[in-house]
Amino acid sequence: MSTELPASEYDARLEAIRDRVAEAEGDADAGVWFGATAIEYLTGFDHVQTERPVVLAVTDGTVAITVPRLEVERAETVPHIDRVDHYVDYPGGAPIETAASMLSDLGVEAVLADADGAPGVMGYQGPPLSEFVEVETQSWVDRMRWAKSDPEVALVRESARWANLGHRYLAEYTEVGAHPATVSQRASTEASRAMLDTLGDRFVERVRGDGPVHAGYISAEETALPHGHTPNQRLREGDVIVTGASANVDGYFSELERTMFVGEPTDEQVHYFELMLEAQTIAIEALGPGVEIASVDRAVADYFDEQGVSDLAQHHVGHNIGMAGHEPPYIDRGWSEHCESEHTNYDPEDAAMEPGHIYTIEPGLYTKDEGYRHSDTIAITDDGIEWLTYFPRDLESNVIR
Amino acid sequence: MSTELPASEYDARLEAIRDRVAEAEGDADAGVWFGATAIEYLTGFDHVQTERPVVLAVTDGTVAITVPRLEVERAETVPHIDRVDHYVDYPGGAPIETAASMLSDLGVEAVLADADGAPGVMGYQGPPLSEFVEVETQSWVDRMRWAKSDPEVALVRESARWANLGHRYLAEYTEVGAHPATVSQRASTEASRAMLDTLGDRFVERVRGDGPVHAGYISAEETALPHGHTPNQRLREGDVIVTGASANVDGYFSELERTMFVGEPTDEQVHYFELMLEAQTIAIEALGPGVEIASVDRAVADYFDEQGVSDLAQHHVGHNIGMAGHEPPYIDRGWSEHCESEHTNYDPEDAAMEPGHIYTIEPGLYTKDEGYRHSDTIAITDDGIEWLTYFPRDLESNVIR
Repeated sequence: MSTELPASEYDARLEAIRDRVAEAEGDADAGVWFGATAIEYLTGFDHVQTERPVVLAVTDGTVAITVPRLEVERAETVPHIDRVDHYVDYPGGAPIETAASMLSDLGVEAVLADADGAPGVMGYQGPPLSEFVEVETQSWVDRMRWAKSDPEVALVRESARWANLGHRYLAEYTEVGAHPATVSQRASTEASRAMLDTLGDRFVERVRGDGPVHAGYISAEETALPHGHTPNQRLREGDVIVTGASANVDGYFSELERTMFVGEPTDEQVHYFELMLEAQTIAIEALGPGVEIASVDRAVADYFDEQGVSDLAQHHVGHNIGMAGHEPPYIDRGWSEHCESEHTNYDPEDAAMEPGHIYTIEPGLYTKDEGYRHSDTIAITDDGIEWLTYFPRDLESNVIR
Repeated sequence: MSTELPASEYDARLEAIRDRVAEAEGDADAGVWFGATAIEYLTGFDHVQTERPVVLAVTDGTVAITVPRLEVERAETVPHIDRVDHYVDYPGGAPIETAASMLSDLGVEAVLADADGAPGVMGYQGPPLSEFVEVETQSWVDRMRWAKSDPEVALVRESARWANLGHRYLAEYTEVGAHPATVSQRASTEASRAMLDTLGDRFVERVRGDGPVHAGYISAEETALPHGHTPNQRLREGDVIVTGASANVDGYFSELERTMFVGEPTDEQVHYFELMLEAQTIAIEALGPGVEIASVDRAVADYFDEQGVSDLAQHHVGHNIGMAGHEPPYIDRGWSEHCESEHTNYDPEDAAMEPGHIYTIEPGLYTKDEGYRHSDTIAITDDGIEWLTYFPRDLESNVIR
């Protein structure tokens, strides 16, 4: 059981950043980040990205951060942050000027930053950082996040356990006449409670006014849309359900989705379910270190083509998952060309799977009336793969009788 | 009861945009948007912003949109969208090239866009739109969203009703020994179910695997942090609770927060509660059309100063709310200067409250151990204000015995 990222992870990440700054051309003397996920990745300081800028600076000797007043106490408890400066609030407290003054105090004159100023979230507007120091941009952390370390994989593995429990409750509470929203919320509540009580002091608090597990589904006609909504309509005999379950484990997530049936499926439903299941199996069997990422999407596309259902596919096979719900690389037939495009900062080597990548595998088929999609979360290892999600995939296990 | 925005709203918004394009200097022949909220505001088409770009173009005669394959069916049902183009998926389907081809087909050569390409969400990278057409940027919709129309205010009013029910359930389920996450999730479940069953066919589906109402809280030491987390610790006699409740009504939100006590509060708790309550009253009494927004934050700061508790305040008085949880303008003492700054696209006239603005009023006090904050959602009207949230604010109503 692993529920918290060890301190050594942050040491390694910060060291990698310091090496990058030292090796970079030019005379930058700090790395700077405005993005909440990157700041969390480097230090463990998590906050909600709002209109209030947060600015992290990593110099050779110091990890310093500028935060709004309301984040001071939390930032000060983070072991990997050496210095916390703050402004009162946005915009009156002059956030960027405060960060510039922190940089100046650290002797920083040129930075490699993830952006030239804070992101335009929730209406933020303000000066570029380059008004105060020399700025070149980098996206080191985005790329560092691709291959997860063993402790990161362990958090996603733990997330998949609680997703599995949430999913079991979904199956348990599903019956004709039940409301899909209520089943979803009840499963989330019970699985969250079990996670909280099982982990006790080892649980890392990350959510506000809610539980750490979310399990839920869309049903009936809404499943025809890959991003459908939960309908305000009670379950009926014959409904298809497309589920989703995950748990927040120290900021890391897994993804578990199943296609289920309320009562006996029709022959047509079984037909599409089995095609979807076989497509998922084909994709999973194609995974592994060194495999061209795009080839997995092509393998599924070829299968759908053979079966004459290409027009029922609406999206590629999957994406990476970790701190964000969707992360690159994407299992998309255009991925290899994307890596070579002048419009990305990727290299041709980025076209292949590597140990530590964690993929969702979720090819889907969508008729006019219903959708069929499983999603599993699978890690690439040194010599193969590891299934992190494990709810049964077969038809029998997914029929609610 | 109003649960859905009338079609006439979108007509008016699109007409306003067409006027702006016609009046703009230069020879732009379309407005273009990549931002999900702006696209929803203009057309009613809602989607989750992911790495898959969605591109809306409004020309004199046509409202056209480029979407990934998985959004085609939903986009086609939107009455205000005349034309739907699509790419297979990102990145292989070449989203920006697809949008450029749509623009070319519409005879568009120059656009006024909310950005020169899709936002870098979930790892998106791709070409700028200016590689294909002439692009100048605008942020019209962000500014249009400040003053809500009567139908928009009605949706926020309806949201506040369901937030109130969720909050009542929070109070009902709270007792010594209860788990704050479970109380939160149970209140959200029950209030969601009541909303779904009350509204029936009038409910507009907007969420996935979840209910439309969220009510929850943080408790005990976590309340000392304005953005604290729900602790994994059962409620004890004497705990302070800071709540939050809202409901999604056709994509619009309200905000209701209360400071509550589990059992009899101490004299010190009563003291800070009453100071916070008076600060909120001062702020609310200062609201109205034509009022300098910053003056409301200054009034509260002056009061805290008089009472010798300035060092316990950690943030400004509030923000606007509507389609997003936080929206400008902010009730911040620096707002007037912000409007005059060269780093915003605001004008000095933007410094005053106007009918249709909807403010959260939430001054807070935070000791080393506990926090105290109510939040109410209040609309500015032609001649005063309207309280949209209405859960009792007084001490007696917020002590759980």
